[in-house]
Amino acid sequence: MLAIEGRNAVIEALRAGVPIKRVLVAEGTKPDRGLEEIERRAKEAGAAFARVPRRELDAKSERGAHQGVLAEAAPYRFALLDDVLASAKGKDTSLVIALDHVTDPGNLGAIVRTAEVVGADGVLIAKRRSAAVTPAAYKSSAGALAHVKLAQEANLVRSLERLKGADYWIAGASERADQTLWEAPLSGRVVLVMGSEGEGLARLTLESCDFLVRLPQAGRVGSLNVAQATTALAYEWLRRGAAER
Amino acid sequence: MLAIEGRNAVIEALRAGVPIKRVLVAEGTKPDRGLEEIERRAKEAGAAFARVPRRELDAKSERGAHQGVLAEAAPYRFALLDDVLASAKGKDTSLVIALDHVTDPGNLGAIVRTAEVVGADGVLIAKRRSAAVTPAAYKSSAGALAHVKLAQEANLVRSLERLKGADYWIAGASERADQTLWEAPLSGRVVLVMGSEGEGLARLTLESCDFLVRLPQAGRVGSLNVAQATTALAYEWLRRGAAER
Repeated sequence: MLAIEGRNAVIEALRAGVPIKRVLVAEGTKPDRGLEEIERRAKEAGAAFARVPRRELDAKSERGAHQGVLAEAAPYRFALLDDVLASAKGKDTSLVIALDHVTDPGNLGAIVRTAEVVGADGVLIAKRRSAAVTPAAYKSSAGALAHVKLAQEANLVRSLERLKGADYWIAGASERADQTLWEAPLSGRVVLVMGSEGEGLARLTLESCDFLVRLPQAGRVGSLNVAQATTALAYEWLRRGAAER
Repeated sequence: MLAIEGRNAVIEALRAGVPIKRVLVAEGTKPDRGLEEIERRAKEAGAAFARVPRRELDAKSERGAHQGVLAEAAPYRFALLDDVLASAKGKDTSLVIALDHVTDPGNLGAIVRTAEVVGADGVLIAKRRSAAVTPAAYKSSAGALAHVKLAQEANLVRSLERLKGADYWIAGASERADQTLWEAPLSGRVVLVMGSEGEGLARLTLESCDFLVRLPQAGRVGSLNVAQATTALAYEWLRRGAAER
């Protein structure tokens, strides 16, 4: 169970579509508009709503910041790489997005949203040193977390090898690539591998890539954040598919 | 002056590059790592750092949430539409991004970041009902707010007319457009008009557009957020320019 603590966090989580099982409110908490919204949204979402002694909230609280309101959410149900491969089976054109230790939950959610919008067959994240599926991820995914096959892989390099065996080209996003997104063969069955916010792709991940691709930058400073970069690359893949049809 | 209240908010603002003039700490506040970081970053940023009686913080505080730490930032210095036009003068290819009441500061910052990366000549926002240049906007702009010409316009429709007079095509992003981003004439001198997160383009804004453009969506639900959509469209504009060179 994932505990979400505090009135504002619980409201935000309910609004964002986090799969909440139960909302607990400390006995004696004064009713107000926030609490009314929580009760209404909990009912709409099919979550239980109960008033319990405050010490029960204290016992469940991890951060000691419940302010009389705590929600329990089911852990996110990850897909398996097998599910992603089954969804892509027989397709000439398929996109899988692999995240090499993207650590910001907001970016994870935004990337899942992009994956849903372009019709990607799945998103892979590494089990360690990766963003978790937090309420912030739900919020930025705008509901897409309920639809996209998001798989959590113990060993991303091994997963990329499996995808190669399933006729995918592995495209790594790197600022040091020679080819731009418009020059690289970003069509057909493609795994787009995105690096972490700070460090880019790990060495072993780089070595698994069939080719690297960069986003040209016309400005004087900086680069896109990883979620924005994923969108630009995913739309280029979608453009190629549309042109071929 | 923009007051930034509370230790975490001040640390975040300093990290994000908000132009802070002065950091005030209540006398008697215990030194700790957070406060050390604030003092170090304030010095690096050339901001004053002073210990003052707590009542002085109380007087400056707008939200009563300073927790003994408050920073004063200079208001953001907007550019003028004239500056944008001067920057674009004589160019065959120029992008201006106009935001029709985008209200989330994180989206504003992300769009300014995209504008910087693709080399846009400016970003226009409306004076009313628009996101302000808050610390959250600085954070998501990743420094780009210091480089992009961001102009605040009293009447966006009138600004679009001025841009038309300066040989721009006005392209409105709308889910109801007939043409996709790959079909629409997104090249040369283009103003990309993006609508608000909830409501899209206002009727008067729509009427100012020379053409509308949509992002094809292959998924089952939802659409991109306005910042992601801006990135996809801006990269399509950049692709056309690269192909013509």
